[in-house]
Amino acid sequence: MLKGLDQRTAAIYAPIQSQLLQVEERLRQLCQESIPDLESLLSYVLSSGGKRVRPAMTLLAAGFYPHDLEKPIIMAGAVELLHLATLIHDDTVDNSDLRRGKATVSNLWGKDVAVLFGDYLFATSATFVCDTGNIRVVRRFAQTITELASGELLEVFNAYNPQQARSLYLDRIYRKTGSLFCTAAETGAVLGNAPEPQVQALRDYGYNLGIAFQIMDDLLDVEGNATELGKPVGNDLLQGVLTLPAIMLLERHPENNPVQALFRHRARPDEEEGAIQVQKALELIHDLGIVPDCYAVIRDYCAQAVRSLEILPDCDARRSLQTLADYVWERSR
Amino acid sequence: MLKGLDQRTAAIYAPIQSQLLQVEERLRQLCQESIPDLESLLSYVLSSGGKRVRPAMTLLAAGFYPHDLEKPIIMAGAVELLHLATLIHDDTVDNSDLRRGKATVSNLWGKDVAVLFGDYLFATSATFVCDTGNIRVVRRFAQTITELASGELLEVFNAYNPQQARSLYLDRIYRKTGSLFCTAAETGAVLGNAPEPQVQALRDYGYNLGIAFQIMDDLLDVEGNATELGKPVGNDLLQGVLTLPAIMLLERHPENNPVQALFRHRARPDEEEGAIQVQKALELIHDLGIVPDCYAVIRDYCAQAVRSLEILPDCDARRSLQTLADYVWERSR
Repeated sequence: MLKGLDQRTAAIYAPIQSQLLQVEERLRQLCQESIPDLESLLSYVLSSGGKRVRPAMTLLAAGFYPHDLEKPIIMAGAVELLHLATLIHDDTVDNSDLRRGKATVSNLWGKDVAVLFGDYLFATSATFVCDTGNIRVVRRFAQTITELASGELLEVFNAYNPQQARSLYLDRIYRKTGSLFCTAAETGAVLGNAPEPQVQALRDYGYNLGIAFQIMDDLLDVEGNATELGKPVGNDLLQGVLTLPAIMLLERHPENNPVQALFRHRARPDEEEGAIQVQKALELIHDLGIVPDCYAVIRDYCAQAVRSLEILPDCDARRSLQTLADYVWERSR
Repeated sequence: MLKGLDQRTAAIYAPIQSQLLQVEERLRQLCQESIPDLESLLSYVLSSGGKRVRPAMTLLAAGFYPHDLEKPIIMAGAVELLHLATLIHDDTVDNSDLRRGKATVSNLWGKDVAVLFGDYLFATSATFVCDTGNIRVVRRFAQTITELASGELLEVFNAYNPQQARSLYLDRIYRKTGSLFCTAAETGAVLGNAPEPQVQALRDYGYNLGIAFQIMDDLLDVEGNATELGKPVGNDLLQGVLTLPAIMLLERHPENNPVQALFRHRARPDEEEGAIQVQKALELIHDLGIVPDCYAVIRDYCAQAVRSLEILPDCDARRSLQTLADYVWERSR
């Protein structure tokens, strides 16, 4: 089995265990094939951990009907490579030094190499998808990359803008995270020969789980502790990024609240002022019971993901997808 | 006709004049379709000039046999978008403030936006290619993006390394420039229903013209004047990038030459020392007659490009491709 998985995740991945190892094998082959200078970069990035939840979704979504086993494996590799490429560019843009407790590429190799190596991985992921020979899947994949990039751009353009409705936030996190979850499931379903309504159902599943995942991630910034995060609590707010807890705070206290104060100058506030307002905002978020309300939103998305699966035939793959959504649901209690 | 073209280029583009305008129209439509914040970025980049030589090659290479006229137009748009995306990332990595006399995206919008907007353009170019519905063309395009990125990475990895043979330089400039020229011609030929040997011939044409173009560009750094370039003469050497003139200098004076001195520390030298050695290198390059020798190399590649066309049927498209190579050849006298 994949190294570093908790028992629960390993159980969810059981039906696709051997395919997931083949995905890893494919990715490792990439290190040998590439030009020498890229070898160390590739193997560093591939060994940086992560639960491989996106490729697992592709493989599970392909697991309903007889199909060419090779194609979803290549597709799953593409999905993971694309995910890794976006992490590298995001860390570069956000000046992040650490990711999952390890130094980022931009930290170790510098921003220039990080930009170009991210480009290289984007393109390599696209060559993987081409090897499926399925133009629908390739087109969906390319659209996903535009969505991922535009999601990050929207975050930059809207930094320190307090006039962001919840709908704008949901659109942004769809682009940033939901899009690749959708595509991971949809392309698996297409390559797994699922009939069209079931492809749509698996796409919906991916959408809902992706949104749940991103809200969970956003909550970590309010709930987590600085040591685990590798960055200060409240970092999103400090960087001018509005997430669900802060949006709920603005919804409930439209005037005279610390987020308004923090975003007043439409630019990063000075350090002391920033720290004070972030602290106030976090306290208010906790006092108003916003965190449990955010968890309720996550549970709704997980429930919706599970409901999407209803039209699919009962089998190991469906049970695993269901348990995956339950697992996210449970973590949100 | 396209704005800003010299008479000679306009004549070369005559057989594809209306298609080139349709390419521009397609690219302009992109501005309207995109999310509002992206509009100004897109229209800035699309109006930044350039001779559209790559999309012209695609359209000309498609002009030999009856075909669906729409497909090469979309492909030409993709080729130009990819070229623009690479310029944006290259300028970001190179800290360039100016390109064709206009401020770069990273200069005006900052490096973070430049990285993400470049990603957005890469992906948009890929969605264009998908609209051709031709998987061979999509695969070739994706491979080209890996080659472009690895070419830039090789430049970064080999900065201030004096042990670079001419073969390494040729491989690097193939990746950086030749690859997209090849692909522009090859994909046009494929979508234009050319028989396979003629596809290969047009690909060879693209290869040879691309290499000639890049050597010409590298020579500007030795020959040009700082005002026209928007950067100091000898900037490549100062940045640790070996180009053909410097490689010829190293070939002729393997020991005790100013390039060796400049690269001694395997890092950017201090300003005064750098300026002195660059000046010495430029003088030696001129004294040894290396510039005319580089022009001879360019002419060889142009001649090879023209020879590649011999197996193609005689028609307007072939005459234009030939004249394009002649034009590069003449500029190198």
